[in-house]
Order: sequence, then C-alpha cells, then structure tokens
Amino acid sequence: MASTYAVGIDFGTESGRAVLVDVANGNELASSVYTYENGVIDERLPAPDDDVRLEPDWALQDPEDYLRTFRVAVPSVLERSGVDPSNVIGIGIDFTACTMLPTTADGTPLSTLPEYRRRPHAWVKLWKHHAAQPEADRINAVAVERREAWLPRYGGKISSEWFFSKALQILDEDPDLYDAADRLIEAADWVVWQLTGVETRNNCTAGYKAIWSKRDGFPPDAYFAALDPRFERVVEDKMSRRISVVGERAGRLSEIAAGWTGLRAGTAVAVANVDAHVSVPAATVTQPGTMVAIMGTSICHMVLGDRAATVEGMCGVVEDGIIPGLFGFEAGQSGVGDIFAWFADHAVPPEYHEAAAAEGVDVHTILEREAAALRPGESGLLALDWWNGNRSVLVDVDLTGLLVGGTLATKAPEVYRSLIEATAFGTRAIIDAFDTNGVAVDEIVACGGLPERNRLLMQIYADVTGREFRVAATSQTPALGSAMFGAVAAGADEGGYDGIIEAASRMARLGGERYVPAPAHRAIYDELYQEYRTLHDYFGRGTNDVMKRLKSIRTRALSDAVPSGIADG
Amino acid sequence: MASTYAVGIDFGTESGRAVLVDVANGNELASSVYTYENGVIDERLPAPDDDVRLEPDWALQDPEDYLRTFRVAVPSVLERSGVDPSNVIGIGIDFTACTMLPTTADGTPLSTLPEYRRRPHAWVKLWKHHAAQPEADRINAVAVERREAWLPRYGGKISSEWFFSKALQILDEDPDLYDAADRLIEAADWVVWQLTGVETRNNCTAGYKAIWSKRDGFPPDAYFAALDPRFERVVEDKMSRRISVVGERAGRLSEIAAGWTGLRAGTAVAVANVDAHVSVPAATVTQPGTMVAIMGTSICHMVLGDRAATVEGMCGVVEDGIIPGLFGFEAGQSGVGDIFAWFADHAVPPEYHEAAAAEGVDVHTILEREAAALRPGESGLLALDWWNGNRSVLVDVDLTGLLVGGTLATKAPEVYRSLIEATAFGTRAIIDAFDTNGVAVDEIVACGGLPERNRLLMQIYADVTGREFRVAATSQTPALGSAMFGAVAAGADEGGYDGIIEAASRMARLGGERYVPAPAHRAIYDELYQEYRTLHDYFGRGTNDVMKRLKSIRTRALSDAVPSGIADG
Repeated sequence: MASTYAVGIDFGTESGRAVLVDVANGNELASSVYTYENGVIDERLPAPDDDVRLEPDWALQDPEDYLRTFRVAVPSVLERSGVDPSNVIGIGIDFTACTMLPTTADGTPLSTLPEYRRRPHAWVKLWKHHAAQPEADRINAVAVERREAWLPRYGGKISSEWFFSKALQILDEDPDLYDAADRLIEAADWVVWQLTGVETRNNCTAGYKAIWSKRDGFPPDAYFAALDPRFERVVEDKMSRRISVVGERAGRLSEIAAGWTGLRAGTAVAVANVDAHVSVPAATVTQPGTMVAIMGTSICHMVLGDRAATVEGMCGVVEDGIIPGLFGFEAGQSGVGDIFAWFADHAVPPEYHEAAAAEGVDVHTILEREAAALRPGESGLLALDWWNGNRSVLVDVDLTGLLVGGTLATKAPEVYRSLIEATAFGTRAIIDAFDTNGVAVDEIVACGGLPERNRLLMQIYADVTGREFRVAATSQTPALGSAMFGAVAAGADEGGYDGIIEAASRMARLGGERYVPAPAHRAIYDELYQEYRTLHDYFGRGTNDVMKRLKSIRTRALSDAVPSGIADG
Repeated sequence: MASTYAVGIDFGTESGRAVLVDVANGNELASSVYTYENGVIDERLPAPDDDVRLEPDWALQDPEDYLRTFRVAVPSVLERSGVDPSNVIGIGIDFTACTMLPTTADGTPLSTLPEYRRRPHAWVKLWKHHAAQPEADRINAVAVERREAWLPRYGGKISSEWFFSKALQILDEDPDLYDAADRLIEAADWVVWQLTGVETRNNCTAGYKAIWSKRDGFPPDAYFAALDPRFERVVEDKMSRRISVVGERAGRLSEIAAGWTGLRAGTAVAVANVDAHVSVPAATVTQPGTMVAIMGTSICHMVLGDRAATVEGMCGVVEDGIIPGLFGFEAGQSGVGDIFAWFADHAVPPEYHEAAAAEGVDVHTILEREAAALRPGESGLLALDWWNGNRSVLVDVDLTGLLVGGTLATKAPEVYRSLIEATAFGTRAIIDAFDTNGVAVDEIVACGGLPERNRLLMQIYADVTGREFRVAATSQTPALGSAMFGAVAAGADEGGYDGIIEAASRMARLGGERYVPAPAHRAIYDELYQEYRTLHDYFGRGTNDVMKRLKSIRTRALSDAVPSGIADG
C-alpha cells in the first residue's frame, strides 16, 4: 500500500497553520502559515466599516479569515510536499476556544450579511474577548444560588471567556441580533461545517467551554430561564443536544471545500478539537499518570484519569474530552511567559539590554544565563506568580503579583529566577491538587514555546515539582494532533488508524531532552515551596485580601478623580 | 562691636566640610570640602600596607584624614570669606557616630605607630563597620539575661555599630592591641582633643552610642565582666566617667591647631557633637512637638520631649543629648534614598534612562515626574520599605523588602511611587510610636539631601503622615549646627550666645516650602497605611518569619555549595 498522509490545521489567535504529515510515523513533510488579514479585531471593525469602534475588552475575528486559511495554507503544503492529494486520507482541525459566532440556519456568518455587518455582535467573538464579565458574574451567581450540580466540575466558577457568557452578552446588548442568529456555534465546529456541509458540535468545546457533560448534558432550561427568560431555550433554538466525540469522523470533504483546498472530495474530516487538548496525544500522552503542560505565555495543564474527581480550582473535567474512554482534566496558570516578558520589558536595567544587543541575542538569553549561575535559594527572593491573576487552584483574577526578600544587593537576574521559580511553585500547587484528589501525576511532558527556549526553566520545574520533565519532539503539537485525528477519521480501512491511542503510538514522539530533579535542589525547593504555600494561602484564601483591596482602591482612585498635584504654600 | 563669625566642621563618611558663618544671622560666607585621601578603608589597608586585606563588613578610616581636613578646609574658608581670624570666635565639630579609635594616653592613634599600623584593629572603626555583629549579639543577650535597666532606652536592642560592640571586637580579635590601647575614644572627641589638647567625652555619643545616661552613667562593671572578665574595667581603663554636655566649651584652640587652621589660638572650641543630632537646632527646632527628619540614604528622626518615655524600637533617648534641658529621642529608617537609588540602578528599563539622557537630567527626575502624575492608590501597589532592614520600630536587620500588587500593566514609575509611599508609611509608623507613648509630633522639619530634590516625596510624606512638612533653609545643617555650637562655646561675652536656643533663634531658618496634607490624599493613604500596618505586623512581628527564613536559606545555599548546573540526560 502506498504511503498515506493527513493534514492538520491549527487555527491560532493571529494565524492559521496547516501541516502535512506522514500517517506512518508523523513526520512533517510541509507546513504553511496564513496570517489572518483582519487579525484580532479589538479597536474598530474592518474596512469599510472601520468607523464602528469597539468597547474596551472586546476581541473579534473575521470568519472569512478561516476560509482563507483553507484556501491558502492547504494548497501550499500540498505543493511544498509534492504529495498527491489522492494519498491524503484525512483532515483534522483544532481551534482556540471558546471562539464562537452567530450564523443563519445554513451556516452563513451574520457578519457577512450587509444588514448585520456593522453590528459588532455579528462577528466572531475570539477566546480573549473579555467584555462578557457581567454575564459571567450572573451565570456564576445564579448557579451558586440554584446549587447547580455542574459547578464543581469547573472548579466552582466559569469564565467570561466561555460560551454562555458570550451568548448571553449578545442577548443582553443586541437582542435583535440574538433573535436573528439561527445558530450560535464554536468556530471550531463552524469550519468543520464549512468543509463537510455537516453541522457537528464537538464534545471538547462543549464540555470545557459550554457546561456540557456526557452524563448530564447541558444545564437545565430552568437554569437558563433564571438567567433571562429569553435565554431559556438557547440550547434548543441556537445549539444542539447532539454532541460528537473527538476521534469520530464529522463528515467528508465537500466538492466546494475540495476546490478551496486542492484535496480530494470525500476525504475524511475529523470532529473539531481545541488547540490545547489536541496537543495531549501529539505529546504522546494517551493514558493516566502523565501531565501535559503546554507552556507559553500561560500554561495549560492536562491530565487523563480513569474516573471523575473533583479537584480544587481546575478549569474543567470532561469525560472523553481529550481521549475517548478517559476523563480529561484541565487546569491552568494565567501568567507564565507573560510574566517573564513583563519583567524583561519593565524591570530590567540597561546593562542587560546592552549585553544582549552586543551579543545579538534577546535579553532573556542574558537573564537566563546569569540566573542559571545562581544556586537554588541564593537569591533570597520568593514571589507569588499572580501578575495575571490565578487560574488554578484559586480561580481568582483579582489576585496580583508579590515579591518578598528584596535587599539593596538584589539584581535583575535574581528576580528573574525567582519569577521562574514562582511559576514552578504554581505548577506544583496544581499537581498537588490533582494528586491529593486521586488524579496521579507521575511525570510531565512539556510542549509549547517555552520549553525549547529555556532550559533553566525546565530544570527548575523538574526540581520544584520533583517530577521528570520531557519535551514533545515537535514544536507544532496542535497541528500534529489535528493531523492524527484526521488519520483516525479516515480509519484503518482507508490507511489511517482506528483510534487516537494507536495513532499517537505511531505518529507522536518525545524529544531527547530529559530534565531530572536534582536531589540537592529538591530539598531547598521543598522548603521554599512551603513558604510559597503559606503566602499563597494567606493572600489567596481570604486571610488577608489586601490584593483585592488594592485593586478596589485603584479603581476608586481613578474614578474619583482625586487630583495628583502637589500642594504647597 | 565688629561682626563675629564661627566655623563649623562636619566630618562625613567620605569627606570633611568646613563652613564659616556669620554669628549674627547664620549666613554662610564660605564652605570648603576636603575629600579624605584614604576614604572608607574596606578592602585593604592603605599603602604601604596594602597587602593587609580586611574581612567582609569591615569599614575603617585613617585619623590623619581628619587632621588634613583641619589643615585644608579651614584655611580655605578663611581665605574664601576674607574674614579676619581674630573675628572668628568659636569652632564646633560634628561627626558620624559611632566612629571610634584606640590611642595611646596622649591621644596618638595606634594606627600611626609603626608597631601597630599593619593591624586592622589599630585603625578608626567607621560607623558602618558591621563586623562586630557577634559582639552586639552577645551584648544584647547578656543584657536581656541580666535584665539591664538601660535596655528599654534603646528600643530593647543595641547595634553592631555602637561603641561597646566595636570595643569588644578589638578585645575578642586582637587582645594585645586592646591592651596597648590606653584610650578608646569617639573620633568626634578625638578631633576636639587634637584641637584643644583636652580630652573630653561628649554626652551625645556617650548617650546614643555608648549606653551612658546622665542619671545612671554607664552600665555596671559587673555587666561588662559578664561579657568578658577582661572587659570589666573598660570604662575605668580606656574611657572616662566624666562626660561633657553638648553646648559646653571643651577648651580653646591650641597653638599647634591654630597653626593647622589659620585660626587664632585661644578660639573657643565646643564639645563635640553628632552630625544628625547637631542638625536639630540648625533646623530651628529647640522645643518639643516638632520632629526633625534628616532625609538622605536613610532617615534619622529626632524629637525633643520634656520627660523620659519608652517608645518601641527607638534608637535611643538621651537627656540633654540634643538640647540641654530636654530629652532627645532618636529613631530611624535604615533605607530610604538608598532604596530609590537601588531601584533606579537595578529595576528601571532603558526607556527611562534614555529619556533622562535626552533631557540631560538624572533618571530620578523622569521617574518622579511620571510618578507625580499618578493619583494616590492608582498604582495598585504596596511595598514594605525594608530593603535595608528595619531600624525603627521593629529593630530588625533581617527584614527585607516586599512589593505586592504587581500586574502585567505595572510600570516603573508606579513601583517608584510605591517605594516612596512605603518609606512614608515607615515614617508614619515611627510617628505613631512616639505619639502613642506621649511624645508629641505635631509637625516636621526636613533636612538632608532628599527634600530639596524631590518635591513629590515631600508631598507624599505630608499626605501619609497628616503632618505639615517644612524644610530647613540650609543644605548644610550639620555644619551650620556645629558653627552654632561654636558660637555658644564662645558665649555672649565673646560675641556669641549663651545657649543653643538663642543661637538657633538667630542663626537657623526654614525655607519657604510648605507641604500641607491634601485631605483627599489623606483618606486614601489612611486606607493604604492600614494595609501597610497589617503586612508590617504579619511579616515583622513573628506571625510569618519568611523573610528571615529566606535569608537563612540563602546563607545555607551559598555555604553548602549546592551546584547550580542544569542536569539532563
């Protein structure tokens, strides 16, 4: 039998990436990126409607950019690889989430219709659209009041980023448009619909972002009615109770989509997936016991378990949500690489920037080198890694960063190292939460942008968590994962695989790096971690809510218009 | 009667400054600085003995530098002013303290004798010589054990910088040299001895640095014996129980010293003083109710009271120690300008340095300007000002700096402002300690380097403390104060004054600046101060000793030689 291939398409925040891989071994033959023409829409709508300005915290996208990704990036990987489209057996896609849009019954985005295109709520709401906080607050308050059974699955709180927060914001702010939307759908499912002509709803976004579970379905209509009587039938009217499981085939490539992509009509198309979650099998993990840490500006932690468990502050647990047959647990740290970037931009004196310029490297390289020369504990510093709030285990966006131990001898690389250590302590706190609730974390596979660039960080994470860290072989785990699901959608009969576990065993690999905890480091980090936990609980669990009071004083100071001037006589 | 003049000489850490002032009104006619040839000796002894290296934390000086100050700076002010030496009626000096040295019976410094000059303990121990911490620990432990009555006068703890810590270190480490020293004496008193040929001991250094009080004298011999049997008679053998009061005349200028200085032999010479304490009358303050804050790298707080009081964590209270007839209270903050300098050097990104260079100003100017545009509370940040420990009210060198409230939007000027605010909260904590113990602080006069340069800082201090701040007219308060005491040493009969209160009323002035608390700012700062106090007590009073544990982990990390390398397989 001839070699077979699969295409994975990863829809990110700024661009879409297609890869073409060999189904036999996961080798990447070609990769192509399409940068969205309209990118992240956060100030004004695209021309010719660019007189329409957006409120703060909005973040939209143009669904046409997703179709352009199909039209540009897929033909490009075919051309670059020289692979015959008839040997491409499957297509998988993954997406940021929750990224959702309103459409007509046939899937036409309202933003493409002249009568709606000037209305901001007609456009795709990107994952980082944060303007639905009032709706999220209502969703949480009503859930607590009604003691909704699903709340513990989400660590006791759902986010303004999630599906019903965004849907409810449309209803609140543009009820006519809400009425005009026949469908409200994840962009992930919408692009699969465009490829196949079939509307499906994947269980990964439904489970992690739309409060759905295999056993209980969506929250009851009475709950939605309690949010707003007009919202009672949101699931019936705008969504679907038929949920497809990742690993299934959503449909086959339509003639139209074959024309866009250059692929063969009839090619198997997988049920849509989420970028983070699809990375788990692409990082070789298909069984309980190994955590996948997707490390970049933030960290997403994924673990598989063979039974449900309630873990404090996790983002969600979804049965079959990552690997069919297993419970997929998700937790997260809301600031990691972002904190290091903030520090490099805002708190590093000129000498380090000059050294970086002289060597032609970036300032992180200099800071990492100097920080690596320090011993654990040598800085005398300890930080709480909450510059962007705490996602797990405290689930509190109003927590802030803290640094203790400063002296007149404190140097920038010492602070840099203490910030890395703080994020490692944050990961350990999450591992501890899983561990104490029966979800084993024996070792960790890292992927994402940070592990390749920062060996010191990886060693500190190993030392702090006491777990061995390995790194996924590919730097494109989401796209590889999508291609793997494409091969599974095709199935063994068509030259693919009958399940994601088999696909992972053939197509996914780890790199050679192995970060092993150093016993001498562990002992000191155990002590420092105890100090971290004490501060974590003191500032994070209500003993001293100074962080929240400082935020509220700040808000008041800005709104009261207290003059800043200097009075003198 | 012709105009009369007085010379004040201020012996600082790096240099000595002479000023010549008009006795009638305090106007400064000339000023001259002599930079010590051997400066601060903290790595090796001066040539030709520069093969002798010093241990860490040592800080010595060369007594010849003090004599060179007389020979260079005093003739210079005479020449520059054109004043006839016969019209100079008095000389006063002030000194850093405790700065002390061993001499022979005739006052010859042991460091000038060939047989001792290669022995570090023969040299002057500068105030910031910090190598006598083990001796200070012993002094405190034995005092607590014996329930020494003097301990509360010093906030419950004496410092490694003080006289008996340094004296005991000589005995501990170089007992032969200790035996060879006929006298152990403050450099302040030693220079007066050189000017007059008369050995006096001033009550200001005796009281604030050598555990002496007017009512109880020195600690009992039995206490010194408990420290070390050989130390029992340190006061009898090496010092004196005859203590002179500031404001008295120590003696008259000798022929030899007249030759050095160009002044008339027989000119009245005042009893020596301490730089901080002599600043109080020079800042116009001679009565209870007004605090003098000497604001520079650190802050020294002085208040007068008409009766003794025990104030938590004060540095000392000495009857007649500042103004005869009153109790002089001293407290302090060990890091203020030093913290801002640390921040500017180690935590400010290039853009601010570039802006400063473009405008030809220093980076503090840029930071202050941007910080001044912020409203109180707007930064969302709060700091504990302990980068150099806490002198008052916690008296704990092992406390460290803390910053809380950091977000990904935090900018350098916000941190800068929060550090200024933190030092202001530290001053308010000291004022509160005085206030609650019956020592009134109704308003504050600032002097030193910071008030002139930083108007934002002064306004924040007024807003935070709720007290009006004014600023001494001269930037050379210590030298002016010394000249005032020189005029008092001469007395009215010789064209001076009969008391320091009268001298202050004629010779000292305030500048025109007046920093008045702004009510809207006070309200927010009251809230922030409550947050500061909560953290102050949590981290400073033993609830969470994380700062000390981080220091001890650091010490261990450095000594255990834990490798810093990255392990991988």
